[in-house]
Amino acid sequence: MAELTEFNLAETIAVLTRTPATLNALLRGLPEIWVQGNEGKDTWNAFDVVSHLIVGERTDWMPRARIILESGEGRPFDPFDRFAQLLESRGKSLEQLLDDFARLRRENLAALLALNLQPEDLKRRGKHPALGVVTLSELLATWAVHDLTHVHQLSRVMAHQYRYGVGPWSAYLGVLQCAGHSAP
Amino acid sequence: MAELTEFNLAETIAVLTRTPATLNALLRGLPEIWVQGNEGKDTWNAFDVVSHLIVGERTDWMPRARIILESGEGRPFDPFDRFAQLLESRGKSLEQLLDDFARLRRENLAALLALNLQPEDLKRRGKHPALGVVTLSELLATWAVHDLTHVHQLSRVMAHQYRYGVGPWSAYLGVLQCAGHSAP
Repeated sequence: MAELTEFNLAETIAVLTRTPATLNALLRGLPEIWVQGNEGKDTWNAFDVVSHLIVGERTDWMPRARIILESGEGRPFDPFDRFAQLLESRGKSLEQLLDDFARLRRENLAALLALNLQPEDLKRRGKHPALGVVTLSELLATWAVHDLTHVHQLSRVMAHQYRYGVGPWSAYLGVLQCAGHSAP
Repeated sequence: MAELTEFNLAETIAVLTRTPATLNALLRGLPEIWVQGNEGKDTWNAFDVVSHLIVGERTDWMPRARIILESGEGRPFDPFDRFAQLLESRGKSLEQLLDDFARLRRENLAALLALNLQPEDLKRRGKHPALGVVTLSELLATWAVHDLTHVHQLSRVMAHQYRYGVGPWSAYLGVLQCAGHSAP
């Protein structure tokens, strides 16, 4: 595993920058079955996933980065509300949510760049209410991997809609074997 | 599971149409670690995945659709060469591969539309060399879910590069728990 990369801010921003356009290309204008379909009772559809990403932009990533820089371990993060997306999305179309997400992400990345973080800043520590001590670089890496977790989930939720449509090919399609570890 | 959708050609084409732009948004211009990184020995990186999708456009989906329409079960499909992408990608950049994939997909969807398939055509049967009897609708549904399987794989392969970078958050990130069932 030694070949796995060290954290690099520019490389992390490269992923974060691309997520809104990726979701836009994947989801905008899709027929309703792909957007409304979920994996069964109390699971998320594409609409819920984009709403959840918006809540993260508003309340999680940059607010937590600021807590680390301003208060360190002295002030634990506020817990992430994993149900707030239900309010966030009420009455909105998927297209409005995609636009909101793109705007908020753009604003947050501008704010991140404005911090002009130096290598020593990335080692600064904060306190997660459940996980304990974390660093700023771990927070920023998690922001990017959290995006990828939800791309992973979206591909799985969409594929699920054709679970029976593919007939015997289901045995060959990895995404249909995924048990759904993409917990929000 | 009764709520899962029936196959619908327009809905399938809606997914197939979006995959090149999705991969383009996710991958084009990314720093090398995201494109070259894989999950360890003999696994695929982003470069390999796009090459594999190109091979599918050239040799699998539309050729098989034509075999079903022209020969039915009388002529089994040619097996899909899952290593042909090694030749396909030799000497090419990721950007060239993304362009090739987008062009081939566009040509194949134009050819699919030109077939002017009717509901009764979608029930026509062909013979898969390993899976046995399959229908045209199952082939087309599989084409779309195969795209989603590789989006699923790409998100997982990229996330893997930051497996250690996220620190204790790895416990919360579903994509890092995925065991890699996205067999090509």
